[in-house]
Amino acid sequence: MGDVVVIAGAGPGNGAAFARRFAQGSYPVALLARTERTVQSLADELRAGGGTALGLAVDLTDPDAVAHAFRRIRRELGAVGMLIQNAAFMVRGAFLDVPPDAFRQGFELNVMSTVHCCRESLPEMVARGGGAIVLIGATGSLRGGAGFAAFAAGKFGLRALGQSLAREFGPHGVHVAHVVIDGVIDNPRSRARLSSQPEASFLQPAHIAETVWHLVHQPRSAWSHEVDLRPFAEKW
Amino acid sequence: MGDVVVIAGAGPGNGAAFARRFAQGSYPVALLARTERTVQSLADELRAGGGTALGLAVDLTDPDAVAHAFRRIRRELGAVGMLIQNAAFMVRGAFLDVPPDAFRQGFELNVMSTVHCCRESLPEMVARGGGAIVLIGATGSLRGGAGFAAFAAGKFGLRALGQSLAREFGPHGVHVAHVVIDGVIDNPRSRARLSSQPEASFLQPAHIAETVWHLVHQPRSAWSHEVDLRPFAEKW
Amino acid sequence: MGDVVVIAGAGPGNGAAFARRFAQGSYPVALLARTERTVQSLADELRAGGGTALGLAVDLTDPDAVAHAFRRIRRELGAVGMLIQNAAFMVRGAFLDVPPDAFRQGFELNVMSTVHCCRESLPEMVARGGGAIVLIGATGSLRGGAGFAAFAAGKFGLRALGQSLAREFGPHGVHVAHVVIDGVIDNPRSRARLSSQPEASFLQPAHIAETVWHLVHQPRSAWSHEVDLRPFAEKW
Amino acid sequence: MGDVVVIAGAGPGNGAAFARRFAQGSYPVALLARTERTVQSLADELRAGGGTALGLAVDLTDPDAVAHAFRRIRRELGAVGMLIQNAAFMVRGAFLDVPPDAFRQGFELNVMSTVHCCRESLPEMVARGGGAIVLIGATGSLRGGAGFAAFAAGKFGLRALGQSLAREFGPHGVHVAHVVIDGVIDNPRSRARLSSQPEASFLQPAHIAETVWHLVHQPRSAWSHEVDLRPFAEKW
Repeated sequence: MGDVVVIAGAGPGNGAAFARRFAQGSYPVALLARTERTVQSLADELRAGGGTALGLAVDLTDPDAVAHAFRRIRRELGAVGMLIQNAAFMVRGAFLDVPPDAFRQGFELNVMSTVHCCRESLPEMVARGGGAIVLIGATGSLRGGAGFAAFAAGKFGLRALGQSLAREFGPHGVHVAHVVIDGVIDNPRSRARLSSQPEASFLQPAHIAETVWHLVHQPRSAWSHEVDLRPFAEKW
Repeated sequence: MGDVVVIAGAGPGNGAAFARRFAQGSYPVALLARTERTVQSLADELRAGGGTALGLAVDLTDPDAVAHAFRRIRRELGAVGMLIQNAAFMVRGAFLDVPPDAFRQGFELNVMSTVHCCRESLPEMVARGGGAIVLIGATGSLRGGAGFAAFAAGKFGLRALGQSLAREFGPHGVHVAHVVIDGVIDNPRSRARLSSQPEASFLQPAHIAETVWHLVHQPRSAWSHEVDLRPFAEKW
Repeated sequence: MGDVVVIAGAGPGNGAAFARRFAQGSYPVALLARTERTVQSLADELRAGGGTALGLAVDLTDPDAVAHAFRRIRRELGAVGMLIQNAAFMVRGAFLDVPPDAFRQGFELNVMSTVHCCRESLPEMVARGGGAIVLIGATGSLRGGAGFAAFAAGKFGLRALGQSLAREFGPHGVHVAHVVIDGVIDNPRSRARLSSQPEASFLQPAHIAETVWHLVHQPRSAWSHEVDLRPFAEKW
Repeated sequence: MGDVVVIAGAGPGNGAAFARRFAQGSYPVALLARTERTVQSLADELRAGGGTALGLAVDLTDPDAVAHAFRRIRRELGAVGMLIQNAAFMVRGAFLDVPPDAFRQGFELNVMSTVHCCRESLPEMVARGGGAIVLIGATGSLRGGAGFAAFAAGKFGLRALGQSLAREFGPHGVHVAHVVIDGVIDNPRSRARLSSQPEASFLQPAHIAETVWHLVHQPRSAWSHEVDLRPFAEKW
């Protein structure tokens, strides 16, 4: 049995795809998301497919809740070897229309949730001399567009955190990678919103998962820190 | 009489140098910083030199305090034409040793204080079809170094905010610029800490102020958004 | 039988590792390098292992020689589906000591050789609606260091070319990726030069090859354009 | 009398504006461009306005011609203190339609002409412990767009050269800066080509010149290496 993989932000799009990919690869997976029903139905699906899965409803911005969840993960599944941070947050609008608290929420969901999960994961990764942390970014991780101030502030912050962690923990054998998803991810909501766009303009979560899988298995002589992903027909 | 210039973070290093430069250039300046004594002694100095200055002790992370300060500025000095955001924050240490709250403080002092000041400044700048906002960044705005996770997360966030504001408000005539200070600023504290370094390795606040002055006076056919500054002998 | 993979710059380090990886993956490989003996001994090795390989000594900066080589490849192996551009060039020294012609050589080996190979490969890739081109970059692709002016000018140019090709040919189904190798590649020469460095500080060509392999097999809903690679203990 | 300023690429747009700005600031200026009539009429204009100017028709990609020009400049005007590299080159088109030689021309005009001029200027700048070199870049210095492969390859190369020179010669007191002009410069040709665009969407050369002037006068405790410039209404 492999290392436990924690998916922080195990929602129905990317998070579920990552969980499926790692469960299919025989890793026990822990699914963290705010909604009980979301994580339980995904855990059920994975177990029905022969996988080992634990679903936990948890507010990732609450350090006590995160600590509690990691204790259960360690007890029920074992030591955490990989953390995939996929907590979603989207806000968009004219700067003067967006409530200041949206900036704070974006920061909590991107940066603080990652801080909390990393504080739980890193000590044991360092102790074992290995581990992998993958942070999921977006176009807004590299570019602050008009109307995206709150979104980009959080995503830039997550990228900064990723670089700092990579530089501090790489020499301890912990691989920290940042994936910049530069395009629209295929899910019922984005399809509905952009119904006139061709299928070729959406990123498939299962395909994103293949690159995440590749990253965490790179031998340590040649680690990637930052990788972008976009559909072939995307204008960028 | 020119437009009012608000210096958010009017501490003894850069902030004071910016205030002196704009007061010398005949702009009324409003000095915001946490400590009453800091802003009053600087305001006294500027008034003694013939300038118009208003010092206000204010917690820049408190939106009500910021709103109150801007009301006093408008009433006592006039409409705000320029905002220079220089709120300082520094934290450094191994990731697992830095308390999570340091990340939040870095975000509040960099991003939220700027959000609050911009929400006060932008409506009148847009109404008048002009204005300038200068955000002061650092090496950590572009690079998340080991031991600098909390610092960089805040500074990256500030840069994201700056790009979003520039793209949204540029067409309204508001010039938003981001200055990346890549080196150690000369002040009593940094000199003491790095006493073995030659003088040539420090940035002089008065020289930084010259570039800030240049930026806010660029004609609108050729605006800079991002400018770096470092001492000539700096290794980078 | 798969698509033909052309390795432009099939020297003993990375180039040979790429060739081995693709031959092992059942792709016919064409090996291009300046020295007859280099390409023939590698082709012999691959054929001895059951692979299909064609070694061609060619000056990659000579468009006629490149055109001639591609005609032989198409005739003897079939249509070219992938191009991996690995032509090596290194020069280092104080700006005033490096002869101007070194800049030109760097440009010819990085940019012009890629232009020539792409002009041969792209028409058939576009006609078939698919293909992959991987360009191998270096630290100097992103940063012009002191003493590296000629090296970086060529590598920056290659990166520019890669971005332009990716944006133009992506919608035609051709995946163009740029790999930034940020560290020292393990080979007899680098080991001798840096004999005091621990093994952990070198990139293994076979490990770099795994990421190249991953890139060219990414499904087209989620393509990477730029990926960095460095050893886990690298300071960056 | 100030230091001699060499404008390499003293064409009718930016180059002339730089020349006017420095002549107005009492610097003797040397004007280098391919066409005799261009440089002579500009030199005449500057002298008529009370300036000191020397116009020299020179192919900047020819090292002997450049050396000859610098000898005349030193003899007739004095020691060169500043070099502004503005050699223009534009090519645009589908990759397979652009002749390979266009890449080479772009490289010669951007990188090699700068190498030649810097080899002439740097030794005396280093000897005197001071000087300034400003390189004029473009949107294509940072981004390789579809249809801009040859343009971007040259401009990326120039940027690489600038970074290397800045890092090598900064400690010698030579300030090397790179200006990224992100938009369309106002001149008869661009106005004709984009006649439907509002005036606000063009950069004015005289305004670009103000930032170049600022850069070369920055005190050495706070030098900028890279500065962007765009019109306020530009979408970026």
